[in-house]
Amino acid sequence: MRLARVIGTVVMTQKLASLTGQRFLLVQPVTTEGKTNGEPFVAMDTVSAGRGELVSIVEKREGAKAFGNTDLPSDGTIVAIIDEIRSVK
Amino acid sequence: MRLARVIGTVVMTQKLASLTGQRFLLVQPVTTEGKTNGEPFVAMDTVSAGRGELVSIVEKREGAKAFGNTDLPSDGTIVAIIDEIRSVK
Amino acid sequence: MRLARVIGTVVMTQKLASLTGQRFLLVQPVTTEGKTNGEPFVAMDTVSAGRGELVSIVEKREGAKAFGNTDLPSDGTIVAIIDEIRSVK
Amino acid sequence: MRLARVIGTVVMTQKLASLTGQRFLLVQPVTTEGKTNGEPFVAMDTVSAGRGELVSIVEKREGAKAFGNTDLPSDGTIVAIIDEIRSVK
Amino acid sequence: MRLARVIGTVVMTQKLASLTGQRFLLVQPVTTEGKTNGEPFVAMDTVSAGRGELVSIVEKREGAKAFGNTDLPSDGTIVAIIDEIRSVK
Repeated sequence: MRLARVIGTVVMTQKLASLTGQRFLLVQPVTTEGKTNGEPFVAMDTVSAGRGELVSIVEKREGAKAFGNTDLPSDGTIVAIIDEIRSVK
Repeated sequence: MRLARVIGTVVMTQKLASLTGQRFLLVQPVTTEGKTNGEPFVAMDTVSAGRGELVSIVEKREGAKAFGNTDLPSDGTIVAIIDEIRSVK
Repeated sequence: MRLARVIGTVVMTQKLASLTGQRFLLVQPVTTEGKTNGEPFVAMDTVSAGRGELVSIVEKREGAKAFGNTDLPSDGTIVAIIDEIRSVK
Repeated sequence: MRLARVIGTVVMTQKLASLTGQRFLLVQPVTTEGKTNGEPFVAMDTVSAGRGELVSIVEKREGAKAFGNTDLPSDGTIVAIIDEIRSVK
Repeated sequence: MRLARVIGTVVMTQKLASLTGQRFLLVQPVTTEGKTNGEPFVAMDTVSAGRGELVSIVEKREGAKAFGNTDLPSDGTIVAIIDEIRSVK
């Protein structure tokens, strides 16, 4: 899973029927130290993540699994809000 | 999902039978600020996107899901036209 | 789909049984301007592409879909020969 | 499979129901010489890997396979602890 | 498929049950000219590849297909030994 911070919302009126009713957030991938890690992308939300929260994102096909709806084309899904990372060196 | 701008169309006469009747567009991946983000690639269209429009693209296997046809080999599908991105810092 | 140019053929005598009878080509990924875009790789052919032709390649799992044979392990399949790309800025 | 070293644990209280009861570790991808190789990410554990251990990680869809639960959205799963790598030049 | 050279073997005693009995090799991705192309990784072997041999590797989900065992989590499988690459410019 990839770490990311929620940085915005995305409005898409004209879209594939199966995407209706889903919530789309703009997320910025970050490192464990909180630095930006690649370009922001659009992810579906399953945990009502709020703006600024650190989230865990499942990518590609597994992202759709989160919905239990195999016809839903999601390739990036927010599956958890991260409370704490305990690093050890 | 990846952000991209429609920059052209692609003509392919000799192709796999299951691809017949599909519309193929050349898309340029972009960042949320509109800068180019990697090389253009060929994507299938499901929302009648027009030239110059900002679209949301589902990649890999999930791209084929958009058609509900699991024998259709698409690894990049335009699933929505983006109206607005509301960024928060 | 990824754009590539056919630059050679690959001979593999000792291989997985399900790959028998398939045609393998060496392809060089290219940009829409025809510049090299990454390292050449081995792709299966479904459209009898010839040397030097510009082709459209479906990657990963979707590559196997092109054969309708879900036991065939292909992660890069040539699905079309490109006649023309009409770019708009 | 990708080589990585276990460098921490991740606490996620608010998460997708199917992830309940799973153990999440922070892993640092490494080269065969032990150098860091990209950014750390979050992986599910199946072999009770300990902190500091060198592990083998299966990515993307195959990561979920490790659980035999196809509704579990894992895109990075620790499937083995590496005892030894015998390199030959 | 990705070209790689077999550079070693990997010993993993504590591992997922479905991986028991499989042979794991350390492979170095190479270009068609034989130069190193990215970091070495661990691949499952299906063709009894020997050390130093040039092999063709199927990645991601398709790697597991090679075994006809859909519960086997392999994301990199050696499916052929390459005899010859005939390049044309």
